[in-house]
Amino acid sequence: MEHNAADLLAGARRAVASQPFSALLGAELVAIGADHTELRVPIRDDLKQQHGFVHGGVLCYAADNTLTIAGAAALGTGVVTSEFKINYLRPAIGDLLIARALVVSAGKTQAVCRCDVFVVRDGQERLCAVAQGTIALPARGTD
Amino acid sequence: MEHNAADLLAGARRAVASQPFSALLGAELVAIGADHTELRVPIRDDLKQQHGFVHGGVLCYAADNTLTIAGAAALGTGVVTSEFKINYLRPAIGDLLIARALVVSAGKTQAVCRCDVFVVRDGQERLCAVAQGTIALPARGTD
Amino acid sequence: MEHNAADLLAGARRAVASQPFSALLGAELVAIGADHTELRVPIRDDLKQQHGFVHGGVLCYAADNTLTIAGAAALGTGVVTSEFKINYLRPAIGDLLIARALVVSAGKTQAVCRCDVFVVRDGQERLCAVAQGTIALPARGTD
Amino acid sequence: MEHNAADLLAGARRAVASQPFSALLGAELVAIGADHTELRVPIRDDLKQQHGFVHGGVLCYAADNTLTIAGAAALGTGVVTSEFKINYLRPAIGDLLIARALVVSAGKTQAVCRCDVFVVRDGQERLCAVAQGTIALPARGTD
Repeated sequence: MEHNAADLLAGARRAVASQPFSALLGAELVAIGADHTELRVPIRDDLKQQHGFVHGGVLCYAADNTLTIAGAAALGTGVVTSEFKINYLRPAIGDLLIARALVVSAGKTQAVCRCDVFVVRDGQERLCAVAQGTIALPARGTD
Repeated sequence: MEHNAADLLAGARRAVASQPFSALLGAELVAIGADHTELRVPIRDDLKQQHGFVHGGVLCYAADNTLTIAGAAALGTGVVTSEFKINYLRPAIGDLLIARALVVSAGKTQAVCRCDVFVVRDGQERLCAVAQGTIALPARGTD
Repeated sequence: MEHNAADLLAGARRAVASQPFSALLGAELVAIGADHTELRVPIRDDLKQQHGFVHGGVLCYAADNTLTIAGAAALGTGVVTSEFKINYLRPAIGDLLIARALVVSAGKTQAVCRCDVFVVRDGQERLCAVAQGTIALPARGTD
Repeated sequence: MEHNAADLLAGARRAVASQPFSALLGAELVAIGADHTELRVPIRDDLKQQHGFVHGGVLCYAADNTLTIAGAAALGTGVVTSEFKINYLRPAIGDLLIARALVVSAGKTQAVCRCDVFVVRDGQERLCAVAQGTIALPARGTD
């Protein structure tokens, strides 16, 4: 089977679309690659907390999922996020979340990735969270 | 106004209930306190990823929110999660998520908390994620 | 060969003693076990920063090393720390640092551990940092 | 007093030089700025662990200190590292460690920074650890 960039994106988009939770949140993958993986989540009222900002849980969903997909670009399918950390920088107020991740370093079974989460308001992107984490291809039949 | 444990829980439950995203996920706060804050999320199909496990984004939502509420028990209302890290330990398969947090250390404007996330299956709890993070009372009018 | 607790501690003490950096800092391992691993670092002036507190780098050395040794108690020798996070809670002022770690969860090739770092002053322990991280047995010949 | 880049670097170099622990490790600050702060640590045998790699504690010292200094470039002197996380990417083997940090986001009292730690061997830099953390200007008289 030929693996080109379009195939990779199509496969990853199907994977995201097949995640019921990603569908519940309305997330859409728009790019995949070790240097640039991008997930978008249009902001709806039911993704907010009580003060009208996007809930932190949505930001960490976006970071977690985008880190995982970036890791898959380096390691192949079947990866999981082992761990990550996130720093929230400012309240996310706007129309759209964009999470962009890249692979910092990858071996055969593990990759370390970083992710920036932006909120778009009035056409302007503002960085609202940054994350860093480990994506792993689980050992078969060991853990 | 009298502040007792029942008042505190009632107020915090209203705060969680007023978060549209927590309502979307079906989360319910069952305890609040510096030593024991507990949030529960009944597992539904739309909270899963493509392999039938609870999505990592739900686990990090539960950790993030429970850390924040534990921090509020120490610092008062109006707190936000500044940052946290989460380690995923095993696939979350079961009927119910239970996130339990406690305050490790608190000053006047900041608290460091830890959270354990369990999945309940056939009546048995299994630890599926652990988190640690900083909850802050934002400086008024400075940042 | 018999593996009992005394052998395990003796072997781990030799491993720590054979680390030039641990010798430079004067660290001593006093317990090893999945439930309780403890490393001690007597506080000297050359371990401080410019205000007389123990330097954060010493606290993170203590956390990192104690997490690793706790992981070794679960996984065996040859482990490395893959990643960890640390929250500093208060300035470390006193005579002795004590880092205590435990294994939260362990598989065959990876363990997640937590560590508390205390400073002892006038005979009293105060928690000054908390850490959480991943210890791994590197895959042979893969990464 | 005039504050220009040369003054800032000179002051920060004096601050690092006045840290006994930084002197013990032989660290030298070579640049400070929100976009580029750089600390160097020549690798000596007593900074290694038992297998001849630089000890993880030295890498986290370098990350911690460089994050703090980058934060000081944004917030002013008197800052502390509140927390950080580090991922180790590969064994650090070589002659020199270079830690480079930048400010991702800064308010009045807090900055979030990232740091990359490289090892130089045979004139080539290789990334061996990445970190992300929070630097804070402690509230006066509150915590």
